[in-house]
Amino acid sequence: MSKKPLNIAIAGIGTVGTGVVEIIQTQGELLSQRAGRPINIVAVSSRNQNKSRSVDLGGFTWYNNPVDIASDPSVDVVVELIGGADGVAYELCEKALKNGKHFVTANKALIARHGASLAKLAEENNVTIAFEAAVAGGIPIIKALKEGLSSNNISRISGILNGTCNFMLTAMAETGRDFDTILKEAQELGYAESDPSFDIDGVDAAHKLAILTSIAFGTKVDFESIYIEGIRNISLTDIKFARELGYKIKLLGICSNENGIFEQRVCPCLIPEEYPVARVDGVNNALFIQGEPIGKLVMEGPGAGKGATASAVIADIMDIARGCFSYAFNIPSSLLKKQDFVDITQHEGEYYLRILAEDKAGVLAGVTDILKDENISVSSVLQKSTAKGENAHIIVITHETFEQSIIKAVEKIEKIASVIKRPNVIRIESL
Amino acid sequence: MSKKPLNIAIAGIGTVGTGVVEIIQTQGELLSQRAGRPINIVAVSSRNQNKSRSVDLGGFTWYNNPVDIASDPSVDVVVELIGGADGVAYELCEKALKNGKHFVTANKALIARHGASLAKLAEENNVTIAFEAAVAGGIPIIKALKEGLSSNNISRISGILNGTCNFMLTAMAETGRDFDTILKEAQELGYAESDPSFDIDGVDAAHKLAILTSIAFGTKVDFESIYIEGIRNISLTDIKFARELGYKIKLLGICSNENGIFEQRVCPCLIPEEYPVARVDGVNNALFIQGEPIGKLVMEGPGAGKGATASAVIADIMDIARGCFSYAFNIPSSLLKKQDFVDITQHEGEYYLRILAEDKAGVLAGVTDILKDENISVSSVLQKSTAKGENAHIIVITHETFEQSIIKAVEKIEKIASVIKRPNVIRIESL
Repeated sequence: MSKKPLNIAIAGIGTVGTGVVEIIQTQGELLSQRAGRPINIVAVSSRNQNKSRSVDLGGFTWYNNPVDIASDPSVDVVVELIGGADGVAYELCEKALKNGKHFVTANKALIARHGASLAKLAEENNVTIAFEAAVAGGIPIIKALKEGLSSNNISRISGILNGTCNFMLTAMAETGRDFDTILKEAQELGYAESDPSFDIDGVDAAHKLAILTSIAFGTKVDFESIYIEGIRNISLTDIKFARELGYKIKLLGICSNENGIFEQRVCPCLIPEEYPVARVDGVNNALFIQGEPIGKLVMEGPGAGKGATASAVIADIMDIARGCFSYAFNIPSSLLKKQDFVDITQHEGEYYLRILAEDKAGVLAGVTDILKDENISVSSVLQKSTAKGENAHIIVITHETFEQSIIKAVEKIEKIASVIKRPNVIRIESL
Repeated sequence: MSKKPLNIAIAGIGTVGTGVVEIIQTQGELLSQRAGRPINIVAVSSRNQNKSRSVDLGGFTWYNNPVDIASDPSVDVVVELIGGADGVAYELCEKALKNGKHFVTANKALIARHGASLAKLAEENNVTIAFEAAVAGGIPIIKALKEGLSSNNISRISGILNGTCNFMLTAMAETGRDFDTILKEAQELGYAESDPSFDIDGVDAAHKLAILTSIAFGTKVDFESIYIEGIRNISLTDIKFARELGYKIKLLGICSNENGIFEQRVCPCLIPEEYPVARVDGVNNALFIQGEPIGKLVMEGPGAGKGATASAVIADIMDIARGCFSYAFNIPSSLLKKQDFVDITQHEGEYYLRILAEDKAGVLAGVTDILKDENISVSSVLQKSTAKGENAHIIVITHETFEQSIIKAVEKIEKIASVIKRPNVIRIESL
């Protein structure tokens, strides 16, 4: 094994970048023992050179323009912690790979949008593109899928992939406070951005899911085809009724291959509370992997944060130091299939419907007639007056049916005179 | 990347060996895509060549003596699935490494007993010794520790490492049937051997723990110093009282480094039922890892069985095919420290005591006086008459105290005239 140091450059010295520098500076000997060679930081770039930081960057070459790092002949590995699917991050990645430098990133948007072409570029230049930190923070899920489970045919991954949403749903359930209050709290705690839409509308989870799907199934990363539904429509009322019926609500990213029918979607789901996925609370991320021959594997851990993300970034750097090479998406990029994913309207499953109506005779009969007409078999029904007593919630849990039937039924239910607004529909997952 | 096939030989074609052959035969193309080169079986050895098997071994060179595989010049990797710490498995391993062949094994006893010297031998001969399948079956825990968490200082691992024990404890709790009945059931289901002592006395879990400790802390594998206590003394009565007090009982393997105080032990533990480790039921294995900077990581999955174990064996083979090299125990064998582990009598923690005594006045006062004398602070007490009503169980949950104080207290309590037998002591774990 080579004893030559591995020289890295870091573009973006924010929270995670600072974490990476700290670990390399304080754990250098341990890293070098484990990798068989020293890991050296040689260059850095960030927006503001004069910002006061908890780490000393004095010994490293400073670049005002991060893209210039890609031309530094002393650099073996470029670590990109800038973010964004395009712009500087993309430019840096492309140039680094073309210049024969390995590329390590925590940038899920970049990989979800351009992963397939960047993987090809890396292969053409005989370098690695690695992005363990892009999915589920500190949980080594990409390594587990590509290497630990390398003999497995994966049939399904369900993941709690966004800590912000999981924190909010957990907090709503535990405190009984509503969505807006909890969102404000999450923002104050630093768990949600001031513009929270990236997290709560499911985009962040979908970026991660796109990457997982590609690795699991050998398909080209296809973020655009993911059905995405965030948690804005999940009210405290839904959470309470779900609990009463024995379910928790979680935002899940799910990809599956059932006998050649491929699906990938991000949406809030009702999950029976005794299932392992229902028990993952707070900001944690978790992954539920089903494959052959392994059966089921669960991984749970911190999905974000300085230490966890830095841990994943350094794991990629250490692999490069040890000369460990694996294909970005598990197989050569030329073999990645362009896969059709089934439309959400083709989804089959159980459903939760919540119908708000005036509290008078006949509504429930109207609802059940419509469900019968659409061939939707009902598993259970719960009717409860609202606090003020004028209206009532009707909760219906269906047996397995088609999303298309649900869509039709909802349209009809909405037209019942005493129904106050469009019913809330949440899919039920049995994992 | 080399396109030359990787030639493997398998010694031991039992359940797991058959699984490995099956996967390589049916998933050859996928494996070759992922590894970047074909994986070929070239030779096999097993006890009986004429035994009818579900796989066709006709195309491979057959060796009656497995050790001869190590001299076959066509073999790159020897896969040892024979078992046993010494004898043929050891001989094969030593010879394979000396002959410059990589060595993959599921043999925990071999690695727990001879890991340090074999790792040294592998390094001297520039080959890999890999044993993912030896710990927690299909869960890629060794890869996660060595590679996924390569930048982490691990402070603690707690594991449910033996599926037989976890099945039995779960089944006792769920069915209310006693130890002997459930053991018989486990034997009928194939979860326990006809001589179950290896599993239920904690030796199997200790083999796995010894390997984890070494990888986590950079210490020489030291099976001999592990404190081992199996589950024979766990009665249905304990399980019921534990539940009443909000705990579950699990057999745990625990290694920890608290500010330089190293501990490794296998013993049944009471765990608060809301903790993640308490929720892992049935034959599954699970690992709870605490490290810096990652925080906490949980992995759960099948700890044994044909498919899961074969999955781990092939993962090691695939790493070798891709040229991925890592030190057997995370750092060069010359750097592995001979570590002193603290004696169990130095353990600090909370304890559960169950005292069976004649149901008459003064016993409880006697017990609490003794605890007071030993400076043991009591968290809660529960006294219940036995079914027949002549005797009573006194359950004491202590606050944090020293094992030595508990030992002394138990000796004194046993001598109280109306105490019928030696109190049952179980450690409480807060993970």
